[in-house]
Amino acid sequence: MTRDQICAKLLEIGLTLPEAPKALAVYVPAVEVGGLVYVSGQLPMKEGKLAATGIVGQSVSLEEAQAAARQCAVNAIAAVGLALNGEFDRLDRIIKVEAFIASDPGFTSQHLVANGFSEVLGHVFGPAGIHARAAVGVPCLPLNAAVEVALLAKVK
Amino acid sequence: MTRDQICAKLLEIGLTLPEAPKALAVYVPAVEVGGLVYVSGQLPMKEGKLAATGIVGQSVSLEEAQAAARQCAVNAIAAVGLALNGEFDRLDRIIKVEAFIASDPGFTSQHLVANGFSEVLGHVFGPAGIHARAAVGVPCLPLNAAVEVALLAKVK
Amino acid sequence: MTRDQICAKLLEIGLTLPEAPKALAVYVPAVEVGGLVYVSGQLPMKEGKLAATGIVGQSVSLEEAQAAARQCAVNAIAAVGLALNGEFDRLDRIIKVEAFIASDPGFTSQHLVANGFSEVLGHVFGPAGIHARAAVGVPCLPLNAAVEVALLAKVK
Repeated sequence: MTRDQICAKLLEIGLTLPEAPKALAVYVPAVEVGGLVYVSGQLPMKEGKLAATGIVGQSVSLEEAQAAARQCAVNAIAAVGLALNGEFDRLDRIIKVEAFIASDPGFTSQHLVANGFSEVLGHVFGPAGIHARAAVGVPCLPLNAAVEVALLAKVK
Repeated sequence: MTRDQICAKLLEIGLTLPEAPKALAVYVPAVEVGGLVYVSGQLPMKEGKLAATGIVGQSVSLEEAQAAARQCAVNAIAAVGLALNGEFDRLDRIIKVEAFIASDPGFTSQHLVANGFSEVLGHVFGPAGIHARAAVGVPCLPLNAAVEVALLAKVK
Repeated sequence: MTRDQICAKLLEIGLTLPEAPKALAVYVPAVEVGGLVYVSGQLPMKEGKLAATGIVGQSVSLEEAQAAARQCAVNAIAAVGLALNGEFDRLDRIIKVEAFIASDPGFTSQHLVANGFSEVLGHVFGPAGIHARAAVGVPCLPLNAAVEVALLAKVK
């Protein structure tokens, strides 16, 4: 798929592909090695601020967490694009997703939060978006983000 | 090893290989890409219900958690089989295990819980079952499972 | 880089490469497969004991956690060496880092702790040390370690 096709698919579900994130110093948003792209854990950053902060099951609802996971998905797609120098058509398929949900000890629907991420991939990429996944609760995340999701993808 | 050989090895330690799990929609139990099988985080499901729910160090004992980890291992083997369309003899070796243990903040024996998973792989696959591993505590897991374990394997 | 070059770089920042860790039974410090080395979650072991135990944001300060993450980094480098039978010059680049920080629910600077690990890789390996990363909080870790970090590297 081209960048334009991906953007059109995202727009159908109300999402916008951000500019490619800036590469930091030692730690970068994504690395391409050996036909794979390893995407760093993505926070639900949107226009420079977090779409959801706090703990799911406390100050963050399931629905808010799912929306945050959707934002993580577009950020992960943007990070893939960064690693591929914008050549999105080199993306072959999604392989694996790791979702970390900042959770109250009594919250046990991490899989439903992670579905927010998975469904964006499915909508945009179709069969090429099908992936293996782990979803777990954590007590807290960097910058008090409610959700962090890492991704592994195959490239051509 | 064939499926029958794997089943015989599991039976020696009182375990039974379940039917291959059903593939869900966007998120699947395992994906084969580039000579590797990525297995999703496995819960200790046994005959349609969780073998252990709750928090280790609270309502779940170390021994119960280890038994749950053993169940995760047979489920992970079944998921590998699903990705390989039942051709278990294509499994070359286990590479990496990631164990997430729902833990009371005072419980610090996640490695002993994860040994339940690792030892099943060692018993069934011998040297081909040797792997790298990360084991960490988490506050809670999907469906209140006590243990979740993901796996990476090499195929021929 | 040779082992001596790596040791010299570590010494510049006050760190010492330990002896290669002993291989355990079913679970080993690192596995080489398909041009990659998968390093198990490393605890901040130093001369047989943990450099930091407890929870960051409670009994462990940010600075102590960063120092522990640096120790995890040298241990991870030693584990890579073990997988490569000491042939450190076969190490091509670092790909991915996964940092688990034992965290008080109110501690949200896991990324700053993980920087301790990342910066050691950057100092020692330069551009070859640049990596993707996920950093998350956990309630507790094996042996009450404050930090656990796993690594993926490419080899020649």
